[in-house]
Amino acid sequence: MADNTIFAELNPPPRLMMGPGPVNASPRVLNAMSMPLLGQFDPAFTNYMNEVMALYRQIFQTANRWTFLIDGTARAGIEAALISVLEPGDTVLVPVFGRFGHLLTEIAERCQARVELIETEWGTVFDPGQIEEAVKRTRPKLVALCQGDTSTTVAQPLAEIGDICRRYDAISFIDSTASIVGMDLPVDAWQLDMVSAGLQKCLAGPPGSAPITFNDRVADIIAARKHIEKGIRPDGFKAASGRMIASNYFDLSMLMDYWSETRLNHHTEATSMLYAARECARIVLQEGLAETFARHALASRAMVAGLQAMGLKVFGDLDHKMPNVTGVHIPKGVDGEAIRSDLLNDFAIEIGTSFGPLHGKIWRIGAMGYNCQKHNILTCLNALETILRLHKVRVPSGEAVDAAIAEYRAAGQ
Amino acid sequence: MADNTIFAELNPPPRLMMGPGPVNASPRVLNAMSMPLLGQFDPAFTNYMNEVMALYRQIFQTANRWTFLIDGTARAGIEAALISVLEPGDTVLVPVFGRFGHLLTEIAERCQARVELIETEWGTVFDPGQIEEAVKRTRPKLVALCQGDTSTTVAQPLAEIGDICRRYDAISFIDSTASIVGMDLPVDAWQLDMVSAGLQKCLAGPPGSAPITFNDRVADIIAARKHIEKGIRPDGFKAASGRMIASNYFDLSMLMDYWSETRLNHHTEATSMLYAARECARIVLQEGLAETFARHALASRAMVAGLQAMGLKVFGDLDHKMPNVTGVHIPKGVDGEAIRSDLLNDFAIEIGTSFGPLHGKIWRIGAMGYNCQKHNILTCLNALETILRLHKVRVPSGEAVDAAIAEYRAAGQ
Repeated sequence: MADNTIFAELNPPPRLMMGPGPVNASPRVLNAMSMPLLGQFDPAFTNYMNEVMALYRQIFQTANRWTFLIDGTARAGIEAALISVLEPGDTVLVPVFGRFGHLLTEIAERCQARVELIETEWGTVFDPGQIEEAVKRTRPKLVALCQGDTSTTVAQPLAEIGDICRRYDAISFIDSTASIVGMDLPVDAWQLDMVSAGLQKCLAGPPGSAPITFNDRVADIIAARKHIEKGIRPDGFKAASGRMIASNYFDLSMLMDYWSETRLNHHTEATSMLYAARECARIVLQEGLAETFARHALASRAMVAGLQAMGLKVFGDLDHKMPNVTGVHIPKGVDGEAIRSDLLNDFAIEIGTSFGPLHGKIWRIGAMGYNCQKHNILTCLNALETILRLHKVRVPSGEAVDAAIAEYRAAGQ
Repeated sequence: MADNTIFAELNPPPRLMMGPGPVNASPRVLNAMSMPLLGQFDPAFTNYMNEVMALYRQIFQTANRWTFLIDGTARAGIEAALISVLEPGDTVLVPVFGRFGHLLTEIAERCQARVELIETEWGTVFDPGQIEEAVKRTRPKLVALCQGDTSTTVAQPLAEIGDICRRYDAISFIDSTASIVGMDLPVDAWQLDMVSAGLQKCLAGPPGSAPITFNDRVADIIAARKHIEKGIRPDGFKAASGRMIASNYFDLSMLMDYWSETRLNHHTEATSMLYAARECARIVLQEGLAETFARHALASRAMVAGLQAMGLKVFGDLDHKMPNVTGVHIPKGVDGEAIRSDLLNDFAIEIGTSFGPLHGKIWRIGAMGYNCQKHNILTCLNALETILRLHKVRVPSGEAVDAAIAEYRAAGQ
């Protein structure tokens, strides 16, 4: 123990986080997290749990009873979904269009599922027919895919996926971490069976809590695998005949008991993160879902117009671009990391690097959640123009910000 | 979606949480959680990650390089430890002295380990010789046990356990959630290989982050199972020959990369919970570990003296009582839940019920973390006396609080 300092008081430097997430949380969410704790079975707290369920039903546009939080970051929600449904040997189909598709295959492999994947070039999406063909060929128990994959900045159209899965008796699972409330995701209308999310993108919260929703098709599968841990098992409880879920923490059957009138103890709900999740949902629902989607779409148009006016090339299939994040090619001969570093040091603005085949080729600029506001888009464009100029990139002066303002003016803002 | 309300602003009622945890968080920790977020690879944030590692080395009294946070509640830390070490068919020995021992067996079973358990009556602990005998007989890969089990309010002496495990080539794992900084746990001096914890008890934080530490005996086992998910795998990376860890979220080999200079992306670290964990550790280290232990021990003596002066019988082996929680028999003919309910409604004080064989037999009264202060112990004793009197239990007037004050006075406070 060479090091026995207690370090200085927490004092995060100011940042405008315009990367692919996390982004600046809403001050209302930060305030919520500073509220006093409650005991997990305090009636005031279980009431908050019920409210959170009702709020996220609205966020997910679903009537699903089973709509609650997984206490972990977004991938905890994915893992809870997959491990509670998949048994060793089950077939999973993963249409992969970016890094987070690979994450789904990886989690499914760890569930010892047999993974079938189809891939499309980064920056493009699948035609629903391609997905149907793969479902027909592989006959999976579960089809898992992302709505938006921030690694490529594109979003897969999902309106037909639920129906395709129903027709071939597969469960559909959607990772909506990167897209939730940034674009439409009517879970029931699209017949999606199971959807998970995270707080740290368009919901304007901190990472660390994963909202999840699933319907009775999924609940039936999980119920058939229900086991309750010794020490809290009610008298006379008989475990279900299905194979025990290979995780205690992510066992949705026990979480369903914890989040219902049964209130059977499982983990101790992460109080402050639940407060945050509750406030994230309230903020969006006060603005309105349609208005929230529109705000992200407008910011996307303004960002794209601005970057293009600067002479930069926007990455990926623009017809399927995620509204909340924009990929942009790093100009030839420019050190992308040096630009990012200068933006951070000179303007306290963070933009994103990229993964895998896109590493070193594109930056990813986000405008989501609390940061998805006109002044931030304009500030970011001006700052990028300045830094590019300092790096000897020829950029037309002021045209980026003018183009972005024009988009806002056209929308009456 | 019958329900489309957004509910009222968050406004938790005032509570003095004197149960087995969670308890009231320190206002300093609540403040820390309201600080602005940072990007996960922002140099300011990775610096905070490094500080958290250094702080928890001091909390765990260890030089272990691998000392960091699991993003989930306390049982997430346990599951990360067990699933990263255990492979199907491995033998685990669990000495069970309460509900949380059963939790360890349950998590180990889900890892498909072969679980051997020894049990002792709730309220008692094992003689180290009993544990050695069981280790010798079962030759486990891992011995997993709790330091303190709040379900029974007793703590297992651990000074000899690490040495026993070394002699039989087993890994020792300790769940210190309920006891960390409430009593001594010198991880290196006691040769303990792997220890996990939680914030919501004596560390005075919210539930939702699980500090963990492990040494090279454990790191070697984990390294032999290292796989990296596709999509972020560095060029030329070869997976280790060992069996892939059956969880992505809890894969300590990937978390080690995330928490070291490699900074390979895994989950997005739960920023606000990390801020909380950092402040929890700073508070304890500013007071001093020895002083923190002493504060809990004194509160325990005062609580026990007070309850006994009230004519109540304290539960369990007093020689091995956890300092931060006190079990007390519910007087005959009294409705334990009605008393708890009145304490909450009249005094806004929460005390704990109990699990399993103790359900309906004892209350559990905590004094830990920020709540482990003289005025809270005195307030709680007076309130309990009042409510018992209203329920027609004969209790000597004022003697409880006098006895508790006497303990504080004897300690010069």
